[in-house]
Amino acid sequence: MLLVKVGGGNANKLAIARDLKNLGEQFIFVHGGRAQADSVAEKFGQPTKRIVSPSGMTSVLTDQTALDLLTMVYAGLLNTQWVAAFQAAGLNAVGLSGVDGRLWRAERKRQIISVENGRQKLITDTFTGKLSGINSDFLELLLERSYVPVLTQPALGSEGELLNTDNDRNLAFMAGALGVKKLVILFEAPGLLRDVTNPQSIMTEIAHQDLESTLPYASGGMKKKILGAIEAFKNGVEEIYWGDSRIEQAVSAALQGRGTKIT
Amino acid sequence: MLLVKVGGGNANKLAIARDLKNLGEQFIFVHGGRAQADSVAEKFGQPTKRIVSPSGMTSVLTDQTALDLLTMVYAGLLNTQWVAAFQAAGLNAVGLSGVDGRLWRAERKRQIISVENGRQKLITDTFTGKLSGINSDFLELLLERSYVPVLTQPALGSEGELLNTDNDRNLAFMAGALGVKKLVILFEAPGLLRDVTNPQSIMTEIAHQDLESTLPYASGGMKKKILGAIEAFKNGVEEIYWGDSRIEQAVSAALQGRGTKIT
Repeated sequence: MLLVKVGGGNANKLAIARDLKNLGEQFIFVHGGRAQADSVAEKFGQPTKRIVSPSGMTSVLTDQTALDLLTMVYAGLLNTQWVAAFQAAGLNAVGLSGVDGRLWRAERKRQIISVENGRQKLITDTFTGKLSGINSDFLELLLERSYVPVLTQPALGSEGELLNTDNDRNLAFMAGALGVKKLVILFEAPGLLRDVTNPQSIMTEIAHQDLESTLPYASGGMKKKILGAIEAFKNGVEEIYWGDSRIEQAVSAALQGRGTKIT
Repeated sequence: MLLVKVGGGNANKLAIARDLKNLGEQFIFVHGGRAQADSVAEKFGQPTKRIVSPSGMTSVLTDQTALDLLTMVYAGLLNTQWVAAFQAAGLNAVGLSGVDGRLWRAERKRQIISVENGRQKLITDTFTGKLSGINSDFLELLLERSYVPVLTQPALGSEGELLNTDNDRNLAFMAGALGVKKLVILFEAPGLLRDVTNPQSIMTEIAHQDLESTLPYASGGMKKKILGAIEAFKNGVEEIYWGDSRIEQAVSAALQGRGTKIT
């Protein structure tokens, strides 16, 4: 079984769905949608706010407005479009957020430290969380009956609140709980680049023990993917394929080593 | 088993979820969200357009923008909030649009006639449809495992397109396919009123044969509920309870005859 995640905004949904159908392997699908959520937030006159942690990690500030917009765009628009693409490719997909069937249970982060103009600021009112449990039975029930689970944010907090969690860490968590050994993660870059301005500088293979040493090459979202990958290997994953969501047969290409393979 | 539908914008989701939990009967839940979709459309600077049919029925004009907004608000924001409310009430709900598991298959209406300033106009580019099939197996699988299906728009067209369909007619269709005899439909009025300005004019009981004769009393969305009810009885439904979504224990109250009962 595969866990497949596609982030980014410009993926050709139908092409990816067809590629997965042709692969013929059982899979669970997870998608993001930050670019679209940002663009909808902009149209709403409520542009996405971002914060920087003391370790230099940039995240979305998920206040109530951002949470509502995320729920509309991820669980509503994009999840439905992904499911329709899988249906068109002949796979009977079921779109779910973490709230459905208590699929993703999460603990809310009580406080987050943000660095603004060199000064630390404590933020306590964000709807951000970390996965603490999944409903494996429900996922297995769907897979057994040949339904393809298509998962996205938000997760369900322990007090019934909706929470924004990190997809890469969720993948690591799910892989551990379900015993999945192989992840495919697609984004809008050819793979991990030593020099982000040079697509030729792609690292085609990395031993998972060396992941931490690649952190300095990574910028923005890529840092989170590396941390997610480190967690995934801790949870028993054996192979991760990072690839470009914008190319043809993107999943197959990644699995054939056209991106970055971590073993 | 019950089919329960709640339209309108101001329902207390948690109170309704708790009421249904206390009732203890198995149910499938369907929700609307027109008021919120209109308000989000307004904020977007893309206010909802409405058209009037030759028979005087007002409908939403579902163009691509309206469809995207509907998918965001119904399948995204409101569906997730309803599911979270059921979870908080101790029911393990699963939110689904008609696209998920091909739950609601629909045929697109190729053309719609709209009357503008007394002149008829043919509209061909709307994403409006009529249910043609449902996935009963999937609904039964969920119910069997004690998951509460929470359904909303859009439906899945035969060419893979997303379609806006009518919830009241969908209820009638589902009741027929699943053999459900009892419907509860809540909205923002005490029931069917002879005089829409006078809450005392409520019709507490109607024989289904007399439904058509009540059409002149009905305005706007109520006309569609009456047509949906006529279809439901044709499909084997035996009792429909119309009630007020804004009162306490709204579902129980409707079932106890505090609204309009159709037999």
